Amino acid sequence: MTTPAARLAARLAPLLPPRAIVTDPDVIAQSLTDWRRRYRGASSLLFAPASVAEVRAIVDAARAEGVPLVPQGGNSSMVGGATPSADGRAAILSLRRMNRLRHLDAEAGLAIVEAGMILSDLHAAALAAGRRFPLSLGAKGVATIGGLVSTNAGGTQVLRFGTMRALVAGVEAVLPDGSHYDGLSALKKDNRGYDIDQLLIGAEGTLGIVTAATLRLVPAVAARCVAWVGLASPDAALALLRRFQRATPALESFELLPAESLAAVLAHIPATRAPLAGTYPWHVLLEVTADTPADDPAGPVERVLAMALEDDLIDDATIAASEAQAEAFWRIRESISDAERATGPAAQHDISVPVEAMPRFMVEAAAACDARFPGTCASGFGHLGDGNVHFHVRAAPGTDPAHWYAEQVPVVSAFVHDLVVAAGGSISAEHGIGQMKRAELERLGPPGRLAALRAVKRAFDPHELFNPGKLVTLAPAAPIQ
Amino acid sequence: MTTPAARLAARLAPLLPPRAIVTDPDVIAQSLTDWRRRYRGASSLLFAPASVAEVRAIVDAARAEGVPLVPQGGNSSMVGGATPSADGRAAILSLRRMNRLRHLDAEAGLAIVEAGMILSDLHAAALAAGRRFPLSLGAKGVATIGGLVSTNAGGTQVLRFGTMRALVAGVEAVLPDGSHYDGLSALKKDNRGYDIDQLLIGAEGTLGIVTAATLRLVPAVAARCVAWVGLASPDAALALLRRFQRATPALESFELLPAESLAAVLAHIPATRAPLAGTYPWHVLLEVTADTPADDPAGPVERVLAMALEDDLIDDATIAASEAQAEAFWRIRESISDAERATGPAAQHDISVPVEAMPRFMVEAAAACDARFPGTCASGFGHLGDGNVHFHVRAAPGTDPAHWYAEQVPVVSAFVHDLVVAAGGSISAEHGIGQMKRAELERLGPPGRLAALRAVKRAFDPHELFNPGKLVTLAPAAPIQ
Repeated sequence: MTTPAARLAARLAPLLPPRAIVTDPDVIAQSLTDWRRRYRGASSLLFAPASVAEVRAIVDAARAEGVPLVPQGGNSSMVGGATPSADGRAAILSLRRMNRLRHLDAEAGLAIVEAGMILSDLHAAALAAGRRFPLSLGAKGVATIGGLVSTNAGGTQVLRFGTMRALVAGVEAVLPDGSHYDGLSALKKDNRGYDIDQLLIGAEGTLGIVTAATLRLVPAVAARCVAWVGLASPDAALALLRRFQRATPALESFELLPAESLAAVLAHIPATRAPLAGTYPWHVLLEVTADTPADDPAGPVERVLAMALEDDLIDDATIAASEAQAEAFWRIRESISDAERATGPAAQHDISVPVEAMPRFMVEAAAACDARFPGTCASGFGHLGDGNVHFHVRAAPGTDPAHWYAEQVPVVSAFVHDLVVAAGGSISAEHGIGQMKRAELERLGPPGRLAALRAVKRAFDPHELFNPGKLVTLAPAAPIQ
Repeated sequence: MTTPAARLAARLAPLLPPRAIVTDPDVIAQSLTDWRRRYRGASSLLFAPASVAEVRAIVDAARAEGVPLVPQGGNSSMVGGATPSADGRAAILSLRRMNRLRHLDAEAGLAIVEAGMILSDLHAAALAAGRRFPLSLGAKGVATIGGLVSTNAGGTQVLRFGTMRALVAGVEAVLPDGSHYDGLSALKKDNRGYDIDQLLIGAEGTLGIVTAATLRLVPAVAARCVAWVGLASPDAALALLRRFQRATPALESFELLPAESLAAVLAHIPATRAPLAGTYPWHVLLEVTADTPADDPAGPVERVLAMALEDDLIDDATIAASEAQAEAFWRIRESISDAERATGPAAQHDISVPVEAMPRFMVEAAAACDARFPGTCASGFGHLGDGNVHFHVRAAPGTDPAHWYAEQVPVVSAFVHDLVVAAGGSISAEHGIGQMKRAELERLGPPGRLAALRAVKRAFDPHELFNPGKLVTLAPAAPIQ
């Protein structure tokens, strides 16, 4: 009973029900590593509160005992954002038991959802009410609303309705001083000063513990049209994107894949087949939806593709003839990460540049990487419409994975990030900073942004009690000047 | 040469061109009162920089001399947000000379615009490129982009594309420490920590001097359909709004007017006539637009109105038969403020509640005001679709205006604001806080929000050099506990 964590548990024991305080190491173990097993932390204490009042009690007691708190939802962070540090100082604050749908108003298109609700459960609840929550991603069966808010998550469907930032109408959170911030009223206009809700979105749990959010719902999908296109270059893909955007406001996805991504999927993922008969250096997967049965999503797709073929902008195209075929097209896109893992180790980068600059960046950055790191093979794939691709550099065949990750990846990633900064881009488009990219963010700044981030962190959490070591620290790792 | 302002002018004289430093009292006088002449300030010094470098020089020198800066654009604030205090301590920083369109990319739908550009000039520039900047408001001929960003401005067209917050892709600003924050790259996805751009939007110049913004452009209007509806109640109007929102994504405006607002316009504004033959207690003005010539905006309007008439949801409706008639309908809406001014003094409140709660609020709050202040007459009009109305309480006939504004308005406004807070609403929907509502914001909190606002202000501007006395001050006017 002498560690701060033990004192914290003892202090809270009279205030919380027994199941809200977990000290069983076997149970806690599941929360000590990220899902890709890149980061391992230590902790002897996990809280699983079921209400805002319990969260506040935990925050107040943790502040009194000086024990940092690491909030955790579905633990599906791509950047080690929910894994505690190895020193074992922190307690984990799991929001998984706060998983209620507090309210859903189909007419107003709003749902008030607790932080621990899993994304696919929200999808189901919205659909049952004749609505849709339009954000989706691979981890939808485990990712929680609190985590999605805290990372400003994106995904494959953000082209039309935006990232979480555009879909969150209000946030409820417990701040480091124990106060309860309630932004759930979902006012469409509210100009009472700085937008604290927007500040909490994407803050990775470093400014407040998000306990609930008011989310916007959109009309359910009445029909969709999914097409696969073969073309010569990212430039042609961008020109095609602009034609679609002029033709319809209902373009939901526009994903670009190089030939090698498709080849990797066909080679390693069972029961996949190429959508087109010919071979092409680049491919586009796109989706247009209809909100009402009266709308025909295929009409604009057919028109734009026919004209693009006539103009030789694209080489071939096919429209999914059934929902099963549409799902088969999407399965290719969603299997790229698994397929690439089967081809060997890679350095992965979630990056963005201005949409107009992306075609040139993809081509030039891949060539620069291949030249700088002989034997490796670089390519980008993903959300061209958002100016966001996942830029992967695959190790030379036969490379030892341990040596690759420990020695080469940091060098490769620094090289890629320098190219991104030179192109006016971001080293984190949608995955966040977490612990994985903190040093790179400090290295690449810019200093004005870093100073602003630190000023905000200091204002809300001067003792770094909330998710320490993630996103930004008050003291720079190395002096910046 | 002994005042801080004189020392500041002397310090900057070698660094700035002569026209950037204005000390002529006649010129400065125009900037010392707001356009409604409710607030009067004092200042002996006005800066008119032409570049970011000049703004940075001014900020650095002002910090060194301890002279506060009051940023000013078109000086069309509704809450005294750009008027200096009466003590004469502050210098005015006019952004009007920084009015260049730095870049416009019609294809990408983005424009980089300096803070001093006037809104109607941006409208014209976008239109010339085949695009549209969709935000508009009465003061469009004087309001500047910097002011619109800094107040998160709204207007009559936010239903489809949102307020400035949704239309700003990035902000450039000079922070109180003199650093240059550059968020102009307009990345569609960027998760490098807290969203500093969103923090600067709506900050009323209290955290940074906005020098430019990247703004989103949308397709130009190919056609519009404007309709006028007579109906029995705000409840019926809300039901009609929901029917329109289900029928079309292109509903741009949905404005609700009580019979007395229409009557005031017809009585006081020349060359206006009632759109409908009958008399109705409530009226709706709505607009649906089409982005492409192939779309027919009248189709959904005719269908929804026909069904609503059949269902007795509405009493009568007419669709403008020409662009001239559409403009005549809009002229009625835009003349309400002028017409009400002609009917006598009023206490005006720019408030919001959740959209679903607005019909009940409008009816019950008006009844409560009429009962509490005998002889006055209260009613709301405006943006029902945004949950935002301008709730005006007109003085009893024969009331002395001076007495009304000095003695009665504060009591009436506190009463109205209490009703708004009880309904879960905001005492400032779109006009901001400025100096006009600061005391009310402090009175009504909530304390958690006030504490967060102060923490952010302290983090960026600990010496209150930027627009002091507006929005929030570091020391509460009265202790809060």
